Amino acid sequence: MLAEINQANALIVGASQGIGLGFVRALLKQDKMGNVYATYRSQDTASELLDLERQYSDRLKCLQVDITDESQIIAATKQIQESVQQLHLAIYCVGVLHDRNLSPEKSLRQIDPEKLIYSFQVNSIGAVLLAKHLMPLFNKRDRSIFASISAKVGSIGDNRLGGWYGYRASKAALNMFLKTTAIEYSRRCPKTIVVALHPGTTDTRLSQPFQKNVPPGKLFSVEYTITLLSQVISGLEIKDSGEFFSWDGTKLPW
Amino acid sequence: MLAEINQANALIVGASQGIGLGFVRALLKQDKMGNVYATYRSQDTASELLDLERQYSDRLKCLQVDITDESQIIAATKQIQESVQQLHLAIYCVGVLHDRNLSPEKSLRQIDPEKLIYSFQVNSIGAVLLAKHLMPLFNKRDRSIFASISAKVGSIGDNRLGGWYGYRASKAALNMFLKTTAIEYSRRCPKTIVVALHPGTTDTRLSQPFQKNVPPGKLFSVEYTITLLSQVISGLEIKDSGEFFSWDGTKLPW
Repeated sequence: MLAEINQANALIVGASQGIGLGFVRALLKQDKMGNVYATYRSQDTASELLDLERQYSDRLKCLQVDITDESQIIAATKQIQESVQQLHLAIYCVGVLHDRNLSPEKSLRQIDPEKLIYSFQVNSIGAVLLAKHLMPLFNKRDRSIFASISAKVGSIGDNRLGGWYGYRASKAALNMFLKTTAIEYSRRCPKTIVVALHPGTTDTRLSQPFQKNVPPGKLFSVEYTITLLSQVISGLEIKDSGEFFSWDGTKLPW
Repeated sequence: MLAEINQANALIVGASQGIGLGFVRALLKQDKMGNVYATYRSQDTASELLDLERQYSDRLKCLQVDITDESQIIAATKQIQESVQQLHLAIYCVGVLHDRNLSPEKSLRQIDPEKLIYSFQVNSIGAVLLAKHLMPLFNKRDRSIFASISAKVGSIGDNRLGGWYGYRASKAALNMFLKTTAIEYSRRCPKTIVVALHPGTTDTRLSQPFQKNVPPGKLFSVEYTITLLSQVISGLEIKDSGEFFSWDGTKLPW
C-alpha cells in the first residue's frame, strides 16, 4: 500500500472491527512501516484491536476517539503529533448503517430526523473533521493518502432501488466533503491524494443483516476487501484526488 | 406552471421571502388556481407574505412552520388535508447559506460540526420530512410535482472551487433524498414528478453577500427566476422524475 515509502506512518480511524481492523492487520504485516495509529470508540468492542496493540506495542498505538466529539479528534491528533511529524496514510473507516436504535429506512414513513442527524454525524461529519485536523500532518513533500470508506449506495446517479434514505444521503454528503477537501488539500498539501472508496459488500457487522441478498461470490471476506482496496490505494496518482473508486479500481459516478 | 389543471392546489414551503415568496405571487396570478398554501417560520420576516394573505384571503392560506420540527410539518399537513384532498404542486424553498450564526466555510479550519448539523436540518432533512408527510396528498390520478430548490454548488461532479463545505454537502444530501423519494413516489404515487431545481444566482437575501462576484447579467431578479423555473416545471414529464434541472432546463450532474 505504501511500499515506496520508508517508515510510513498510518492512521486508521474506526479500527475496532471490520474493514478498519483489517487495514490495521495488513499494515502491521508490511515491511518498512513506521507507526500505525488506530482509533476505536469503545473498549467493549475493541478487544481484537487492543490485543494487537499488546502484540505490536512497538508499532501500534491505539487511541480512544468518539468521532462525533471534535475535542476527541483534536486530542488524538495532538497525541500523534507528539511522536511523528507526518502521516502518509489516513483512512476513515467509521460508518453506521444500523445499530440498536437505527435501521435503514425501507420507506419515507420510517424516516426519523434524529436518526438522520446521527447518520450525518457518523458517516459524513466525522470524516471532514478528521480532514480539518489532520491537515498539518500532511506535508508538501511526500505522496500521502487521505481516504474514506464510502459506499456505492451513496452514489446518487447509481441509485435505482431507493430506500436507505439516511445511509445514502450521509454517504453522498461524505462524498461531497471529500471532493471539497481534495480541492483544498490540492492547494495546501498538494501531494496528498483524497479519495472515496467503495469496498464492495464485505462480511462485517455492517452488512450482516443484508447478506442473504448478496449474489454468490459477491460477499467479500475482510481480507479480500483489504487486498483489493490496498491495490487501489497503491495505484493512486495525484490526478485521482477527489474521485470515487470502487474495489476494482473503476471510478464510480457521484 | 399548472395550466392544464383546473383548480390546482399548491404548497410553497419557505415562502416568506425570496424565491418562495416569488412562487406564491406567481401562483396567485394564475387563472384556475385552487388553494395556495404558504409556510413561513417567523412572523417578523413574513410581513409581505402575510399582507398577500389579507389581500387574497379566499385563495392563500399561510401556515407557520419551523421545518426543523417534524411535529409542525405534521400539523401543517393536517390543516391542508382539512380543506383539500390533493396537492398538484409542492415546492421546498427553504435553505440556509448564512445567518447570524452561520457563514459558508472558506476552508476546513472554519468547519463547526454544530453548524454542519444545522445546515443538514434546514437544507436536507426538512425536504425529506415534507416528502414523507405530503405523500397522502399526491394521488395516483393527476400529474403533480414535488420540487425542491437545490443549487449547482451542491453538484459533486461540478465542484471545482471548493469551500462552502456545509452548504455543498447539505445540498448533495438533499439531492440524494430527492432521488430516493422519486423512486419511492414512482411506486406509490406514480404521477408525481420529483425534481431538484437550480435557480441560478437570484437577487435574494441568500445571495446578497456574494453578489459582487456574479458576472453581469448572471444575477437574476426573483421574477425572472420564477419565470424560468415555472417553464422548467411546466415542461416536466414523468421520465424526468429524480433528475436535477438548471433554470434553463438542462440537466445538471450529481
